[in-house]
Amino acid sequence: MADEVVLLSSWFSPFGMRVQIALAEKGINYEFKEEDLRNKSPLLLQTNPIHKKVPVLIHNGKIICESLIAVEYIDEVWSDKSPLLPSDPYQRAYARFWADFIDAKMYQPGRKTWTTKGDEQEASKKEFLECFKLFEKQLGDKPYFNGDNFGFLDVAFIPLHCWFQVIETFGEFKLEEEFPKYFDWVKRCLQRESVSNTLPDQKKIYALACLRRKQFGLD
Amino acid sequence: MADEVVLLSSWFSPFGMRVQIALAEKGINYEFKEEDLRNKSPLLLQTNPIHKKVPVLIHNGKIICESLIAVEYIDEVWSDKSPLLPSDPYQRAYARFWADFIDAKMYQPGRKTWTTKGDEQEASKKEFLECFKLFEKQLGDKPYFNGDNFGFLDVAFIPLHCWFQVIETFGEFKLEEEFPKYFDWVKRCLQRESVSNTLPDQKKIYALACLRRKQFGLD
Repeated sequence: MADEVVLLSSWFSPFGMRVQIALAEKGINYEFKEEDLRNKSPLLLQTNPIHKKVPVLIHNGKIICESLIAVEYIDEVWSDKSPLLPSDPYQRAYARFWADFIDAKMYQPGRKTWTTKGDEQEASKKEFLECFKLFEKQLGDKPYFNGDNFGFLDVAFIPLHCWFQVIETFGEFKLEEEFPKYFDWVKRCLQRESVSNTLPDQKKIYALACLRRKQFGLD
Repeated sequence: MADEVVLLSSWFSPFGMRVQIALAEKGINYEFKEEDLRNKSPLLLQTNPIHKKVPVLIHNGKIICESLIAVEYIDEVWSDKSPLLPSDPYQRAYARFWADFIDAKMYQPGRKTWTTKGDEQEASKKEFLECFKLFEKQLGDKPYFNGDNFGFLDVAFIPLHCWFQVIETFGEFKLEEEFPKYFDWVKRCLQRESVSNTLPDQKKIYALACLRRKQFGLD
């Protein structure tokens, strides 16, 4: 029996994109079900009653929530192709630690650079930049965060890049000048079809952010 | 060369206890370095500059932070004995999801049942109880959260039990009457030396909480 794989996500969700990239790396066909996060489907609420968030991966009826957990699941189920986590336990712990850092420390400040104003925005900009510096430093002179091969930590981070035009514009950053290694890494990642076919155009994301800012009364 | 294993933790840290239990399950000797969290050691600040928290595991000079990541690391390095994560990818994802739930949803409300008062305390009590109910339901009729064998999810949760007298007393709960399956599970876990030798006496934890409440101006 062929695998039945369904992904509940939203086209602009960087968390959903992680799962899309992982599935693409493994060459898995799946059905993408677009979720309207302002009017969540009964299927989303039923499959993720705890967090009520995308992405939700459904594989032969088995439900896997939380993007990093889903990426590990995909890596373990389809282990014969494109390994994402390294095999060495310390390197695995390293990848898990920094992937967790993205979610725990960078995501909210990054989001607040364009969803808040005044002091809250200023504090978020500072926090985001400090975290980004710390994270980018992990790249060093390696081609990928995991070393020589595209892997778990790259999958965890690259989706945030499509939000960078938004963060740079509203946060008034010039990230490209300050972080050339990061932008070289982005170019390398975008050479992979798994990434380039998944990440939406930054302009489309920017248009969505402009709309949301109007709805939030910021513009 | 024998493994050199050092653990920086505090005797009352449920996160540190996870690592202690995992090491004990694997039969690994290690040096426990007690940290004063009100006056953190240079070694802690140097080994965990991001979070500045215990536990930190140092294995032959390699530094592993974040308790769940450290438990997975221990399980992968010493894989020949007492496997903690199940081998099935879905069961692994399940264990990771609920372990994350403990940290993301239960820990702070649990802590606030005894570190806050008034409306904040009432809201925390309600939230803790709802999360605890959801979590306890996962046990079902299984002897352990992972199934027939003591594993990752048990390691993640059992340390919180030594804080239950504090939570029950200040939160005015009677958990034992309402959750007999949970208390049967606790008894099963405490039959393991890895657990009984690690968990401090609830009375000692209670005395610490009373002292902290005085310091916080709550009593």
